[in-house]
Amino acid sequence: MPLLQDTIENIQGVDMKGMEQARKRIDALCKPPGSLGKLESLAVQLSGITGQLYPTVDKKVMIVCAADHGVCEEGVTTNPQDVTVFQTLNFPKGGTGVCAIAGITNAKVVTVDVGVKADIPLDAGVIIHKIKYGTDNMAQGPAMSKQEAIQSIEVGIRVATEEIIQGADVLGTGEMGIGNTTPSAAILAVLTGCDPIEVTGFGAGVGQGGIAYKAAIIEKAITLNKPNPKDAIDVLAKVGGLEIGAMTGIILGAAVHRKPVVIDGFISTIAALIAYKLEPKVIDYIVPSHASEEPGAKIAAALLGIEPMLHMNMRLGEGSGAALAFPILDAACSMMKNMVTLEEAMQLLKR
Amino acid sequence: MPLLQDTIENIQGVDMKGMEQARKRIDALCKPPGSLGKLESLAVQLSGITGQLYPTVDKKVMIVCAADHGVCEEGVTTNPQDVTVFQTLNFPKGGTGVCAIAGITNAKVVTVDVGVKADIPLDAGVIIHKIKYGTDNMAQGPAMSKQEAIQSIEVGIRVATEEIIQGADVLGTGEMGIGNTTPSAAILAVLTGCDPIEVTGFGAGVGQGGIAYKAAIIEKAITLNKPNPKDAIDVLAKVGGLEIGAMTGIILGAAVHRKPVVIDGFISTIAALIAYKLEPKVIDYIVPSHASEEPGAKIAAALLGIEPMLHMNMRLGEGSGAALAFPILDAACSMMKNMVTLEEAMQLLKR
Repeated sequence: MPLLQDTIENIQGVDMKGMEQARKRIDALCKPPGSLGKLESLAVQLSGITGQLYPTVDKKVMIVCAADHGVCEEGVTTNPQDVTVFQTLNFPKGGTGVCAIAGITNAKVVTVDVGVKADIPLDAGVIIHKIKYGTDNMAQGPAMSKQEAIQSIEVGIRVATEEIIQGADVLGTGEMGIGNTTPSAAILAVLTGCDPIEVTGFGAGVGQGGIAYKAAIIEKAITLNKPNPKDAIDVLAKVGGLEIGAMTGIILGAAVHRKPVVIDGFISTIAALIAYKLEPKVIDYIVPSHASEEPGAKIAAALLGIEPMLHMNMRLGEGSGAALAFPILDAACSMMKNMVTLEEAMQLLKR
Repeated sequence: MPLLQDTIENIQGVDMKGMEQARKRIDALCKPPGSLGKLESLAVQLSGITGQLYPTVDKKVMIVCAADHGVCEEGVTTNPQDVTVFQTLNFPKGGTGVCAIAGITNAKVVTVDVGVKADIPLDAGVIIHKIKYGTDNMAQGPAMSKQEAIQSIEVGIRVATEEIIQGADVLGTGEMGIGNTTPSAAILAVLTGCDPIEVTGFGAGVGQGGIAYKAAIIEKAITLNKPNPKDAIDVLAKVGGLEIGAMTGIILGAAVHRKPVVIDGFISTIAALIAYKLEPKVIDYIVPSHASEEPGAKIAAALLGIEPMLHMNMRLGEGSGAALAFPILDAACSMMKNMVTLEEAMQLLKR
């Protein structure tokens, strides 16, 4: 069976009994019920995912998926396209934003070339799974073929699986791809049926034509390619991106191996939305992180029923927001492991 | 000169030149300008506070101030008053919420008895600076004398100074005091001139009479004691609390020694408001953390012009939200230290 289909079919629901036991313990802890808010629900979720009453997330891996976008030809962004390859080479050097933030929890940063528009040297420290040299310009035709879209998702599944085999307790999704808020907004517009202008934002720097022009290009791509909103793979292929597909695969890969996956901002949330369309059970494995500044991020999060925990006005991408949420998972685990119940506290005081 | 007056007079403004240099470096880093949002402004603030282009916050100390409240007699809370002493004894054992969360950054938790309504054993691991056995019932008279209010602030200054001498790079404010959302709301109502009902919330469990009754008690205390809104010490004395005063002192102590201080939720923000009234320069040393569920928290934060970073629906107190923000300070420092500029990145790639 092809990897994608096999993965989707093997994703199981979380451990309901484990969640119940976690909730029971949390309610017995020495604090007013519910007073640790999202930290409590996160701990319950981690118990559901891992089946452990005292889950651990010691080994953290941030996977940054990099690819280019043909739609940059249309002038939707001010950033030169070769920033993608430049930053892809920078991640293994450790000096990027996500590397600095991942460092606070000793998280490993893994970089994957899914479709950068240049050859990445084999010794650059980047995992090469290049499918093509960037997507085609979706304003002129489909961004990629359906087969390439599936391949991009399978890259994510493979990399996630490899990292989990090597011991990862939690994954994070990050991306690098100049122009990728454009396909992200396009996917969201198709899936919600809304006017592209409602989900189009500034990105990392909108082109000369401004947001209205960017939305018009998205509109054009949708009208031209007619992606089927009921077929997530078709949407990803026609108006999506290779790194978006790879992040979808990371989420599916985490879910099938029963590991939590922390998603970053707008582009990651769109990848999560595609994963959710492919298999709704993935939602229980997804942990939100920060509230992106992009207008579509809020809409996508609401569709998934998730609420970001960090409000940092960040819009860097790379997985920077997800990396900043890693310590919150540590806190949830520490709450389970190190907080005592009323009864245990009384015992401790007697000593 | 008395300690409080001396401290206030010696608080200096932050290093504007240091902030400028930090801003310059941040703008040169390999990312779209401003794209790391509050992490950038936090880094600039830390540079201003410490005068260092590469600030560090390695040694973190969370100071939990504990005291009781006479107003509990009025039935404003469902929680039995002896939870204060119970939890005060628990903090040094390490099993409370704030301890579990502080653990993720190896922060030290220090517990201070400023006015718990019971004798704390000398070997309990609690710093004893007891001023009295809890405040008096503010619905029947002033909560404490002006002298006691000043003493409570001075306790905070002393403890903060001691921790900084021992090497603390950053302090956090936490509290334990059953009933303390009542004086906090009272202080805010006096300082803003608003109706108590607008700033009164559920707390850790509102008494039988509900929020309306709690607000009526606050109204009664204000009418009876007539605190002078232009005199923050008078407000603290008449309708405040001993641990609130101590937290005010921690903030003043951090500021005078040029160290950042992370404030927790509603009660900490009220303490910050008092510190700000005593010396507006303190604001530059204050780092916000989480958005408390209490309605007054938002109002108090707006008065100070600060914006919480974490939205966790937490309402435990103890300093739990401030402890959860400690890793964000680490991330800001790591951004300064480990992110490279465009030029540095190009050099690295050439190697």
